[in-house]
Amino acid sequence: MEDSIIHFESDYMEGCHPKILEKIAQINFQKQVGYGQDDFCQSAKQKIKDTLGKFGKDAEVHFLVGGTQTNSTVISCVLKPWQGVVSAKSGHIAVHEAGAVEYTGHKVMEIGHKDGKIQAEELQEYLQTFKDDGNNTHMVEPGMVYISHPTEYGTLYSKNELQNISSVCKKYDIPLFLDGARLGYGLASFETDVTLQTIAEFCDVFYIGGTKVGAMFGEAVVITKKDLIPHFFTMIKQHGALLAKGFLLGVQFDTLFTDNLYFEISKNAIETAMYLKQKMLEKGYKLYLDSPTNQQFFIVENEKLKKWDNKVGFCFIEKYDSTHTVVRFATSWATKMDDVERLIENLE
Amino acid sequence: MEDSIIHFESDYMEGCHPKILEKIAQINFQKQVGYGQDDFCQSAKQKIKDTLGKFGKDAEVHFLVGGTQTNSTVISCVLKPWQGVVSAKSGHIAVHEAGAVEYTGHKVMEIGHKDGKIQAEELQEYLQTFKDDGNNTHMVEPGMVYISHPTEYGTLYSKNELQNISSVCKKYDIPLFLDGARLGYGLASFETDVTLQTIAEFCDVFYIGGTKVGAMFGEAVVITKKDLIPHFFTMIKQHGALLAKGFLLGVQFDTLFTDNLYFEISKNAIETAMYLKQKMLEKGYKLYLDSPTNQQFFIVENEKLKKWDNKVGFCFIEKYDSTHTVVRFATSWATKMDDVERLIENLE
Amino acid sequence: MEDSIIHFESDYMEGCHPKILEKIAQINFQKQVGYGQDDFCQSAKQKIKDTLGKFGKDAEVHFLVGGTQTNSTVISCVLKPWQGVVSAKSGHIAVHEAGAVEYTGHKVMEIGHKDGKIQAEELQEYLQTFKDDGNNTHMVEPGMVYISHPTEYGTLYSKNELQNISSVCKKYDIPLFLDGARLGYGLASFETDVTLQTIAEFCDVFYIGGTKVGAMFGEAVVITKKDLIPHFFTMIKQHGALLAKGFLLGVQFDTLFTDNLYFEISKNAIETAMYLKQKMLEKGYKLYLDSPTNQQFFIVENEKLKKWDNKVGFCFIEKYDSTHTVVRFATSWATKMDDVERLIENLE
Amino acid sequence: MEDSIIHFESDYMEGCHPKILEKIAQINFQKQVGYGQDDFCQSAKQKIKDTLGKFGKDAEVHFLVGGTQTNSTVISCVLKPWQGVVSAKSGHIAVHEAGAVEYTGHKVMEIGHKDGKIQAEELQEYLQTFKDDGNNTHMVEPGMVYISHPTEYGTLYSKNELQNISSVCKKYDIPLFLDGARLGYGLASFETDVTLQTIAEFCDVFYIGGTKVGAMFGEAVVITKKDLIPHFFTMIKQHGALLAKGFLLGVQFDTLFTDNLYFEISKNAIETAMYLKQKMLEKGYKLYLDSPTNQQFFIVENEKLKKWDNKVGFCFIEKYDSTHTVVRFATSWATKMDDVERLIENLE
Repeated sequence: MEDSIIHFESDYMEGCHPKILEKIAQINFQKQVGYGQDDFCQSAKQKIKDTLGKFGKDAEVHFLVGGTQTNSTVISCVLKPWQGVVSAKSGHIAVHEAGAVEYTGHKVMEIGHKDGKIQAEELQEYLQTFKDDGNNTHMVEPGMVYISHPTEYGTLYSKNELQNISSVCKKYDIPLFLDGARLGYGLASFETDVTLQTIAEFCDVFYIGGTKVGAMFGEAVVITKKDLIPHFFTMIKQHGALLAKGFLLGVQFDTLFTDNLYFEISKNAIETAMYLKQKMLEKGYKLYLDSPTNQQFFIVENEKLKKWDNKVGFCFIEKYDSTHTVVRFATSWATKMDDVERLIENLE
Repeated sequence: MEDSIIHFESDYMEGCHPKILEKIAQINFQKQVGYGQDDFCQSAKQKIKDTLGKFGKDAEVHFLVGGTQTNSTVISCVLKPWQGVVSAKSGHIAVHEAGAVEYTGHKVMEIGHKDGKIQAEELQEYLQTFKDDGNNTHMVEPGMVYISHPTEYGTLYSKNELQNISSVCKKYDIPLFLDGARLGYGLASFETDVTLQTIAEFCDVFYIGGTKVGAMFGEAVVITKKDLIPHFFTMIKQHGALLAKGFLLGVQFDTLFTDNLYFEISKNAIETAMYLKQKMLEKGYKLYLDSPTNQQFFIVENEKLKKWDNKVGFCFIEKYDSTHTVVRFATSWATKMDDVERLIENLE
Repeated sequence: MEDSIIHFESDYMEGCHPKILEKIAQINFQKQVGYGQDDFCQSAKQKIKDTLGKFGKDAEVHFLVGGTQTNSTVISCVLKPWQGVVSAKSGHIAVHEAGAVEYTGHKVMEIGHKDGKIQAEELQEYLQTFKDDGNNTHMVEPGMVYISHPTEYGTLYSKNELQNISSVCKKYDIPLFLDGARLGYGLASFETDVTLQTIAEFCDVFYIGGTKVGAMFGEAVVITKKDLIPHFFTMIKQHGALLAKGFLLGVQFDTLFTDNLYFEISKNAIETAMYLKQKMLEKGYKLYLDSPTNQQFFIVENEKLKKWDNKVGFCFIEKYDSTHTVVRFATSWATKMDDVERLIENLE
Repeated sequence: MEDSIIHFESDYMEGCHPKILEKIAQINFQKQVGYGQDDFCQSAKQKIKDTLGKFGKDAEVHFLVGGTQTNSTVISCVLKPWQGVVSAKSGHIAVHEAGAVEYTGHKVMEIGHKDGKIQAEELQEYLQTFKDDGNNTHMVEPGMVYISHPTEYGTLYSKNELQNISSVCKKYDIPLFLDGARLGYGLASFETDVTLQTIAEFCDVFYIGGTKVGAMFGEAVVITKKDLIPHFFTMIKQHGALLAKGFLLGVQFDTLFTDNLYFEISKNAIETAMYLKQKMLEKGYKLYLDSPTNQQFFIVENEKLKKWDNKVGFCFIEKYDSTHTVVRFATSWATKMDDVERLIENLE
């Protein structure tokens, strides 16, 4: 890519944390059995379960390759044929996965949101309305609730909010699934009271994102609800999501969950993002919303945006009005403070 | 069913028009070839095409059994794998078909509506926004527009509205599909400038509902856009929608399209519905919205509703507020004016 | 159709038994609730359950419209996502349903057969081989066994054969499904020890075919295994298989299961078929196989076949060799002995 | 894994070729755009196309992650909804992909084979029989032919055989797809007249396997038939097969197709396999069939097999008879001659 551009388009622009690369190189010629039956996968699974404390004791862990794949595989395996998955209208599965969930035969049932977050009250009313509807045998039954944390807008649920959503789900006996593609950055935020244990406590299934948080690729699905997905191994295979050299996933997560690496490297994304936010505000840029994580959203004049060309790499989010656009900058575990400085300078 | 109740729950409570029954009886022992290859189907198809005038000349007609079946079969056959169908949030396929479209692997892309009708301007903006989105290769492409006429709220598109929606569809090269489950009642309305020819002119595919308009069962799919659905016969079979004794569909539509029977019997539903509306208004009942067709929607106090029990059969639509409910009365080709009188009397 | 041709193409060439037509005419203007919630359906279900004796006590009965629809709906509702259905290579679902089962996402796992019948020993070995295979988590799990009775070749399982297949299925905990599209003709055969109760005893789910045995259309699904298919009503809707005027199915099966009508009218098909077989053999025609039911298969010289044109309606089955063809004659509840006589005369 | 065991279970037990690892390390912190829009992917695609000579000029190249994923994505994207894919009964898609193709709604139409290879004559007859069948509108249409090269038994098509199969496909206007999971080993065989250009000439779409031939993971799909798969990028996403850090695939294939690395490293697998075969034969072991590639199949007495435990890692293929088993040894680009020597010693 062109050197002259300062890249903040996304959080998956680098390879992986050097410790992972080192480990992969080290075992490169050690023969491993296929399909995740290797020792690295077993070790990584145990470490993840250990991190979850008492909530991890009976948990199952599975490694898949990417986020959309994980979402559609998990969702379609949990849902019964007559069910759909409830998601915020802004949810990744509702917008940016090319209909992968519908491809598996299930409706994404969109509800409202506040900065990307489902509201427990609205969810409660949605589920109750379905239950009360005399014609609901002609309708798709809500069979799962999908949330992302951080959300697509970088926002975070508080512990209390997660608990409330979980309570609503439990009341209607519906599993709660958390998409943690950027989970590390949520947990490392300066403004959260949510830990990985909180998530394991309140969610029936969730995944710990690797692709965007230090790994080359890989997402660790954690199932805390017993027997939630029978025959998951075969289902992963059927969905084309089973990596032959599964040990590559094992090695990566084993490394990430050794000495808190996953959590440690996530902090960098937050620190650089917060600095970026502060500097942008100082320069007079307007926040679209206030995100406490690695994705920062700004409302920028289209005229100004033109001047960024060939200098700054950002992500177009949406038209704000006829003269403004919402854009996103994303930091990551690999972002350097220097890059932020250069970005800010270039925006002058 | 209990005799004491006056039934206005739906428009599919009777068998069929006596002329159909008579014809079926008459040919009962004449041997026919299967799967719609019989002479009655050929004759019925020709009559329907003739009714469409110049717009029917190159049309294809196929007979299916029921509405949900027709919607999911047609929609899934028209859409490409990466596409979804745009529908009003209130559209039958979005709400009351148990996820039949999603079951075929496609997203129902919900947009706003006015009394059940898609607005051409909103549709235009929706399609343009998709086109402009830099990430749209990660999104479901709108591949078809679904409208119902009459809508689920009994409302009708004007000729001008149909033309505008059609223009938008053409601009984005997207087929327009009209669900005519109650088409007869739309065409027979006192307040419409839309004819069957109008529909054939502006829609690429639509169906003429039989089940609710005089037939025992059956929907006639008319494809006006050349080669829109290849191998449709095999697709109908694959979807479990091919009737072995297809001649039963042929006989019914042949009868309905002889001497304008379909149009003539539809008038009765309108006349009884308009009378019902007038009388209800005189009694002080409030319309939920003003429908010019056979479905009439009222806002009724819950207290009053209780008194209807065991006396009046109606359809629950939704909670209006904490003390009121929206209900529907449906007339049909078979409704007697006497029934309406009895209904009104019973409502005090 | 042309009068000069004597039709033996199939067993679904007539409308329905006159008693059914009479009953439909009688109730034509009695208003009924939709979707099979009517009294006729309830009555018909009870009568069918009564016919099954003790095996019907806890059975569920559902009415669908056609055979392919019933097969794909039932099979996809019973199978788990990682499973397929075992069928004879000649099974209707494997050959003539346009991939309707695969369309639902499941493999039809073909095994050998003897004149259309699965052999218990082969089935046992097939299931055991799967169980023993160390790689079977990468394979489709056999999740259901499909048999037809009569088979596609008109042949019948003996009670003993059914029991053996059932035992194998039970051993591997796999439900057994019997496609009874022509069940009446199987039960009415002169050479069977199988009754409807036998079938209810050995099968977990089966259907009693109406379309080919006296009804206009309709198949009665009987589920004897408790809770085999949850939310079946909604699933039927989702598959486009829910008839709005479900009472039409109720009336038909209620009539067929009153005074043994279903069984009585089936006998005619057998009597005419046996007479046809005898006369054909006397004329020197060769059986392809010996069928004890209403479908009769012959090996005919191609030269002779040409002379049948415009005189005799039959069904092409397959090329036998370069100079011979296998053809089928089908009788039905409506076939007249006179027709058979005329057929035989015309074959001279 | 236990050091005491000599591993010949499969050809995906190591990480990747050191040059790939080196390159990945080198660019680890160079920011890349996502989803395969990066320069490495462009370069790799061009190199692959260049290798194909004139047959690559108009080819499209796409990178996916794994084999089953590639098969089900490509096959379901090429097939029309009424079509199935023809495969040898022993084909990977027919046996070991957990029903991934059927999951996409399509039948795998199994035909016979000779040592894993489809026979052109049988294919021709199969396609012609379908075409001639008067009931074929009720049947799944063969819409693609799938072959693997090397096959699941390690065998190879000759150039002449490929040409014949291609001719049959062209005659019936059916695309030919070649699964090249182990393509490098096929091309490096001492007994083949097939080059990558041959494959590009005769196949409409094929993939060059990376996972088993030097890469960590990755398969390069080459589409030689113009416009065979529209919107493939979105389809890959929908199937969960789009890697966020697509540049990892680009880097790997760019390295493999620089200086003939892919072809060079494949030779090692052949040399070690041929040596292994020779030594096994000298020791008196019996071939199950004679494979010219990296998979070698032997018939071994069960008694002998027991002694291999904890000493030799092999792959169970199938029961041969009550006292013998078919087993497979697989070599790879990474196998050392020493390992073969140790294996042979251990088998004494």
